[in-house]
Amino acid sequence: MCRWLAYSGSPVLIEDLLYKPTHSLIDQSLHSRLGAETTNGDGFGIGWYGDPSRPPAVFHSIEPAWNERNLRELAGHISSSLVFAHVRASTGGAIQQTNCHPFRHGSWLWMHNGFIGDFERTKRDLRLAVDPSLYPEIEGTTDTETFFYLALTLGLEDDPPAAVARAVGVIEAVGRRHGVEHPIQMTVATTNGEDIWAFRYSSEQDSRSLYFSTAVDTLRQLYPDNPLFQQLDVETRLIVSEPLGDLPGAWNAVPESTYGIVQPGADEIHPFTPVAPA
Amino acid sequence: MCRWLAYSGSPVLIEDLLYKPTHSLIDQSLHSRLGAETTNGDGFGIGWYGDPSRPPAVFHSIEPAWNERNLRELAGHISSSLVFAHVRASTGGAIQQTNCHPFRHGSWLWMHNGFIGDFERTKRDLRLAVDPSLYPEIEGTTDTETFFYLALTLGLEDDPPAAVARAVGVIEAVGRRHGVEHPIQMTVATTNGEDIWAFRYSSEQDSRSLYFSTAVDTLRQLYPDNPLFQQLDVETRLIVSEPLGDLPGAWNAVPESTYGIVQPGADEIHPFTPVAPA
Amino acid sequence: MCRWLAYSGSPVLIEDLLYKPTHSLIDQSLHSRLGAETTNGDGFGIGWYGDPSRPPAVFHSIEPAWNERNLRELAGHISSSLVFAHVRASTGGAIQQTNCHPFRHGSWLWMHNGFIGDFERTKRDLRLAVDPSLYPEIEGTTDTETFFYLALTLGLEDDPPAAVARAVGVIEAVGRRHGVEHPIQMTVATTNGEDIWAFRYSSEQDSRSLYFSTAVDTLRQLYPDNPLFQQLDVETRLIVSEPLGDLPGAWNAVPESTYGIVQPGADEIHPFTPVAPA
Amino acid sequence: MCRWLAYSGSPVLIEDLLYKPTHSLIDQSLHSRLGAETTNGDGFGIGWYGDPSRPPAVFHSIEPAWNERNLRELAGHISSSLVFAHVRASTGGAIQQTNCHPFRHGSWLWMHNGFIGDFERTKRDLRLAVDPSLYPEIEGTTDTETFFYLALTLGLEDDPPAAVARAVGVIEAVGRRHGVEHPIQMTVATTNGEDIWAFRYSSEQDSRSLYFSTAVDTLRQLYPDNPLFQQLDVETRLIVSEPLGDLPGAWNAVPESTYGIVQPGADEIHPFTPVAPA
Repeated sequence: MCRWLAYSGSPVLIEDLLYKPTHSLIDQSLHSRLGAETTNGDGFGIGWYGDPSRPPAVFHSIEPAWNERNLRELAGHISSSLVFAHVRASTGGAIQQTNCHPFRHGSWLWMHNGFIGDFERTKRDLRLAVDPSLYPEIEGTTDTETFFYLALTLGLEDDPPAAVARAVGVIEAVGRRHGVEHPIQMTVATTNGEDIWAFRYSSEQDSRSLYFSTAVDTLRQLYPDNPLFQQLDVETRLIVSEPLGDLPGAWNAVPESTYGIVQPGADEIHPFTPVAPA
Repeated sequence: MCRWLAYSGSPVLIEDLLYKPTHSLIDQSLHSRLGAETTNGDGFGIGWYGDPSRPPAVFHSIEPAWNERNLRELAGHISSSLVFAHVRASTGGAIQQTNCHPFRHGSWLWMHNGFIGDFERTKRDLRLAVDPSLYPEIEGTTDTETFFYLALTLGLEDDPPAAVARAVGVIEAVGRRHGVEHPIQMTVATTNGEDIWAFRYSSEQDSRSLYFSTAVDTLRQLYPDNPLFQQLDVETRLIVSEPLGDLPGAWNAVPESTYGIVQPGADEIHPFTPVAPA
Repeated sequence: MCRWLAYSGSPVLIEDLLYKPTHSLIDQSLHSRLGAETTNGDGFGIGWYGDPSRPPAVFHSIEPAWNERNLRELAGHISSSLVFAHVRASTGGAIQQTNCHPFRHGSWLWMHNGFIGDFERTKRDLRLAVDPSLYPEIEGTTDTETFFYLALTLGLEDDPPAAVARAVGVIEAVGRRHGVEHPIQMTVATTNGEDIWAFRYSSEQDSRSLYFSTAVDTLRQLYPDNPLFQQLDVETRLIVSEPLGDLPGAWNAVPESTYGIVQPGADEIHPFTPVAPA
Repeated sequence: MCRWLAYSGSPVLIEDLLYKPTHSLIDQSLHSRLGAETTNGDGFGIGWYGDPSRPPAVFHSIEPAWNERNLRELAGHISSSLVFAHVRASTGGAIQQTNCHPFRHGSWLWMHNGFIGDFERTKRDLRLAVDPSLYPEIEGTTDTETFFYLALTLGLEDDPPAAVARAVGVIEAVGRRHGVEHPIQMTVATTNGEDIWAFRYSSEQDSRSLYFSTAVDTLRQLYPDNPLFQQLDVETRLIVSEPLGDLPGAWNAVPESTYGIVQPGADEIHPFTPVAPA
């Protein structure tokens, strides 16, 4: 449906992340190889962290990313050590800025590839499950935004994996109550500006693709002559819907029904199991 | 907040309605005289009826009306005998097509000038009062759209004045439960493609302005030499947020807390009183 | 680069033309089969003739056609017996309404698939060749618009095939003076609201595809049971960048270096040869 | 027609420049006090200098500035020591990004309030006066952009005041040849990223307003208790179409037919006289 990229590491010019790679996200907006749709032209968004005293910035546009001049300008002038970027292929929802990922709440960002099955039927129940204090913040009409606020309601800011497991549990329970066979299809990334949590899961156990980049120290051993890998901070990590190029050994598929944590020190990968509501 | 116009009568080129009058709606988008805001530049919309076998058409844009070339093109090529037009001044909500009036459901159109007081606080309760079967149709974030679906829930298609009275009753009850002093401020127009119902009301009894045009036969007597009035169908009627010109005798203020019906035969005007929920 | 469609015949709802066919132009905006680019998402435009006392209407948008709600609305409410429609894939020029086809001058429309080779280098000379009285009407930055005004300068309104032959002659002469190997690649359609002229030509003799629909009386013989063909006016004709479906016998390739005329009575097809400037 | 602001000095968050002042530029977009038009809602643009190895960034939008969310986001995250900002009121030209100020060429920015008189008639001659090597860079249709490229043609990068005097001389000569009574009305700002040159002039000697802020050391003496003035770099200077507030002593009108230079060390103000072409 969509394509996304999450970056954490050495401060990088957003241009180097979005435009420079061989099979960049901008290229994927026009010619995705692994996506359910080859074209992701229904708007895009980026989110990035700068001044730590402020919430992350977001830039949302309803234009296709491939020809958006403002994105190119900004990408050439903004550096960040934590960037989320997303190109959208709408499954019918309106093309409007409030439907563009990443979504933001306080210092958190959230983006998603996939869908909540038959969302038109389950939307009301899912929105009702959102905490009333958070409800007024929902601005758009996407399944993703409701999913985010559901996760926030269920503790995202305290324990992201547990909150996402509970939110998926609610989505599956509500979906099944409405007769939806496969209530969720998802790769999701979320961050608080420090760590990134990335999830790959689907009710049918046939999830959209997700890849993470090989650790920089391993890349240095594989490619001792590549100056880029010498420069990068060892903590640098990319998580992407599809690889940004074809460098052997550089990309690793995230297994079905797992989630990963990109954090200071060793990154982690764990099984992901939805938690049904009590 | 906004400015609107409802027209019923002889088929008219939309251009003649929107651009030709001295103080046209397009002029009001840039220089409103009577509005709470002088500029109504946060998008616009038109709705019109054509082929009776189809629902009305709507055209929504997030650009200011005064310089929108597509609107000018369409206005010069589309004629209709029932037209709604609206220029928006947002009170904070997102500028997106799904927030542009008129809103449509089946063969009905709805538009509004004013606001639901403190909507952020009452939004969830008001949306919950919308029938679950209608809930998924809500696409934007405006108070107006929720008001429309509330009225539909409460019988708009069967008895518009009663349904609007009930919807306003719910809005006032919910608002007061949340401590809102003046829960609603409104001039509203709605139509099924045959008749138009227009309401002027506010909880504080100090409503936004609303005018209706003098009956064509009276205008003919007042201005026997004006060829326009000779041509117009006697049933022709305009309802507007503010007069489109300064012709003496041509415009009549709608009284506080009343509603009017534009229909075949004699039009009517009645007192409007909200009906509190049981 | 782009995809276009020209229709002349029985009055048709634009929706039936743009959305209903199996491989419709809207479908081609997302998944072109024969185009140089598979995605034509850099805006679109339609032009149509209504009231004969007025110039044709044009509707231009910078959004991709596949998800444009206003286009869908208008298409469902506007009928015409002569329609031009175009989906754009920019080769670098700005995405703005003034770069969207069809272009209009007086009662004429003009649209193009292809490009003027190395236009950045030849632009000034080509614009200088435009009549000074027409020059101020050029609003955008496309090669196509300059081509149109060049053809107007060289007599389009009097003798379209001759004027286009002269304009292409100028483009080739100017291009070659600037060292451009293949100065033009084109399929072009133009109309005065009565007849349509369609051209297929390229300096390298390897032109973009162009098809015209089979004459309605032939289609009736081929498909005696198809009610659509019984209804259509015998003069009905479609010219398209690529076929709208796979119906055997329904589509005919326009030969290399030819132009066709769709007109009352028998349509014509002739060789096309550029005329070099004296 | 438009309103603009040029800032040079201590690095400032763009938000503090555009949104925080009492009568900020964003406020002027909706409610200008001194402008020829009270509403400047036909798009906007900002330009700023960051990494000195790169050209300045520009961000252009066709939406009104007052409700543009991306502008607010960016303004809250980008700091710069040299910023240009402009809100546009079109006098008829298309609302498109390529018509938004500031315009950029290499490391130069340029913005303008006013107009070239009867530009439709003089446009071709003025564009012809642009150097052929610069001509292809002209992307929009504004008088301002042509004026900029004319000034570049006439030496802007070497001697800005002389080049602008020559460009205005050409505009006046061409205008008068076409019978235009008052060929130019202008306040213009241009910068190379180091110094700012600001011009106030009109053929009729009745120019649009222009103000510069009082030197910081004088403001410190006037307002010894104002902490802002203690923090600001003494070189900080603002040039604006209209004052950003009502602080007595803070704003100074630029005299008719003069230009100022904001530069390291003492700023300068000089008479401005157009230089007629030989």
